[in-house]
Amino acid sequence: MKFEDFKIMATAAAVPDHVVDNDQLSTMMDTSDEWITQRTGIKRRHIATHETTSSLGTAVANQLLKKSGLTAQDIELIVVATMSPDYLTPATAAIVQGNLGADNAVAMDLDAACSGFVYGLKVVRQMLMGDQRKHAILIGGETLSKLIDWHDRSTAVLFGDGAGGVLIENAEKSTGSFGAEDLKTLGGMGQYLTAGQTGQPTPFTKDQTATNPFFKMNGRRVYRFAVNEVPQSINRALAQASLSVADIDHFVLHQANSRIVERIAATLNVAPEKFPVNIDEYGNTAAASEPILLNQLVKDGIIKAR
Amino acid sequence: MKFEDFKIMATAAAVPDHVVDNDQLSTMMDTSDEWITQRTGIKRRHIATHETTSSLGTAVANQLLKKSGLTAQDIELIVVATMSPDYLTPATAAIVQGNLGADNAVAMDLDAACSGFVYGLKVVRQMLMGDQRKHAILIGGETLSKLIDWHDRSTAVLFGDGAGGVLIENAEKSTGSFGAEDLKTLGGMGQYLTAGQTGQPTPFTKDQTATNPFFKMNGRRVYRFAVNEVPQSINRALAQASLSVADIDHFVLHQANSRIVERIAATLNVAPEKFPVNIDEYGNTAAASEPILLNQLVKDGIIKAR
Repeated sequence: MKFEDFKIMATAAAVPDHVVDNDQLSTMMDTSDEWITQRTGIKRRHIATHETTSSLGTAVANQLLKKSGLTAQDIELIVVATMSPDYLTPATAAIVQGNLGADNAVAMDLDAACSGFVYGLKVVRQMLMGDQRKHAILIGGETLSKLIDWHDRSTAVLFGDGAGGVLIENAEKSTGSFGAEDLKTLGGMGQYLTAGQTGQPTPFTKDQTATNPFFKMNGRRVYRFAVNEVPQSINRALAQASLSVADIDHFVLHQANSRIVERIAATLNVAPEKFPVNIDEYGNTAAASEPILLNQLVKDGIIKAR
Repeated sequence: MKFEDFKIMATAAAVPDHVVDNDQLSTMMDTSDEWITQRTGIKRRHIATHETTSSLGTAVANQLLKKSGLTAQDIELIVVATMSPDYLTPATAAIVQGNLGADNAVAMDLDAACSGFVYGLKVVRQMLMGDQRKHAILIGGETLSKLIDWHDRSTAVLFGDGAGGVLIENAEKSTGSFGAEDLKTLGGMGQYLTAGQTGQPTPFTKDQTATNPFFKMNGRRVYRFAVNEVPQSINRALAQASLSVADIDHFVLHQANSRIVERIAATLNVAPEKFPVNIDEYGNTAAASEPILLNQLVKDGIIKAR
C-alpha cells in the first residue's frame, strides 16, 4: 500500500491564561482601543506569564493524543513551526518530544515565520509518504511577547502568544483529502519585517553594535505584500485543483490584521463571511494563528471531518 | 516517471577568513593548546568578523550553482539547517533565496542542532519526491561564535563558524543512490546542551531573569550520549540496508570532538582511517560540520561521484 495523501485526525490549541486588552496597553504606551481596533481588528491578546513555546506546544500535543486516541509511542514525527523557540538549541520540538516521552518520534523545528504552519503541512505530508501507516504532530507555537519592544507602540499592539496543532495520519491517495497547494517565498522582502536578531557581538566582530532582539516592521510594505500576493497564491492553488473561489466554503488565513483579510476577500470577490477571523481575541500569533483558528472552527462545528 | 530517490550533484563550503588558534585563545582565557588538543583534537577554528550565517550560506549556494551548471531559477527548494540563524525572522534560508534571486524556490530553516544537516537530507529527499524533476539546495550553516561566552573556557574552545552544502536532484528509485537511514531524537536529554535562549523578559513574565544567549553544556553527559547512541544508530542503518561496517568505505560523522569519533570507530571495530576528521581546522561547527567535511573529501578525491 502506498500512502501519498494525509488526513487531519484532530486539532487542538492552547493559549496563555493572561489576557491583555487594548485599554491596558494604552496605560503602557501612547495608544488607544479605538486606534488599535480600527487599524487591526485586535481587541485583546493572550500573553505568556510563565508559559513557554514548548509548554504551550506540549499542552497542544497532549490534547491531540487524547482526541485521536493515540499514545505518544504512536507518533513518528513532531514538527514545531516557530519563530520564537525556547532556545536555538535544543529545538522546541525536541523539548516537546521529551515531555511527551514520544521515543519513536523524530523532532525538528521549522522556521518560515507566519508561513511556518502551512510550510509545515507540506513537510509533514511529504515526510509521511511511503509504504507504512504513520502519524505526525505538527504544532505552530509562538511566544512573540518576548520579541516585542514594549515601548514601541507600532509593533507592541500587534502580536500575541499561543499554540495550535494538528495530528496527521498518512492516507492512500484515493482518499483525496489533499487538494492543491501553492507555496512561495519572497526572501528579498525579508528586511521589511525582522525580529530576534540572534547572538552577541564577539571579541572578533568588526561591528560591536548590540543585536536587536525585537520586532522591526515596515507596516506599509507588509500590508501591500499581503494584499497583493495572497489572492494570487489562492488563485494558483485553485487553478491547480480545477476549482474556483465559489467552490470553497472556508478560507482559513493567517491572522495578521483583519483589514488585510477583508481586503483579500474583496479582491477575490468573496463574501467576507467565508473568511473567518479571530484576531480580535489573539492578535497576530504568527505560525500559531492558522491552527488556533482551525481548531476553533472545528470546535464550533463550522468545519467538520469528512 | 516517479522520483523517489536523490542524487548529490555538487558539494561546497565557505568559512570565515579569520582563524583563531589555541594559542590565541590561551591569551584570552585560562587554557592551553595542549589542553584543548588532547581533549578535543581542535587546533584552530574559523571565526566570523563580518560574515553571517546567511552570507556564508549564500557563498555556498553560489558555488553549488556554479559547480552544477544550474541557475538560481532551477532551484525549487532551499533549506538551511542552523541553530545560529541571522534572525528568528526572516529565516536565513529566505535571506539566501533573496540573495540568489531564486524566485522559484520555497525557503525554510530547519533546527535540529548538530543533526540539522542529516535531518535536512531526509526532509529534502521527501520534499523532492513526486512526478517531476526537481532541485534543492541544502545548507548547514552556523556562526556559533555569537552564541559563545568568550569568558567560559569550558565551551569557548569548542565551537567554530562555517557553512557547507549540497545541491540535490531527485532521481528514479532504480538509481539506488540512497541506501538507508536512521534518525532518532532524544529530547529528554536536551537540558545537557543548550544555547541561544531567545527573547527578553516582558512586563508580564513572572521570572524577570535575563535570558542566557550562550552555550551551557554538561560535557560528560554529551560525550556519554554520543559514544553510546551513535554506534547503535550506525548499526541500525546498516541492518536496514543489509550491510555490515566492512562494506562502508567512509563514515562521515558530525565533528564534535575527535575523541568521540575515535571511540565510535573503536566500538564498531573499524579502522580509524575510515572515519575522516577535520575538527583540528574548524572546531565543532554543528549543522555545518558534515557538509564541510563531505566537501573536503570530494575535493580531495577521496569520495567520488558514482
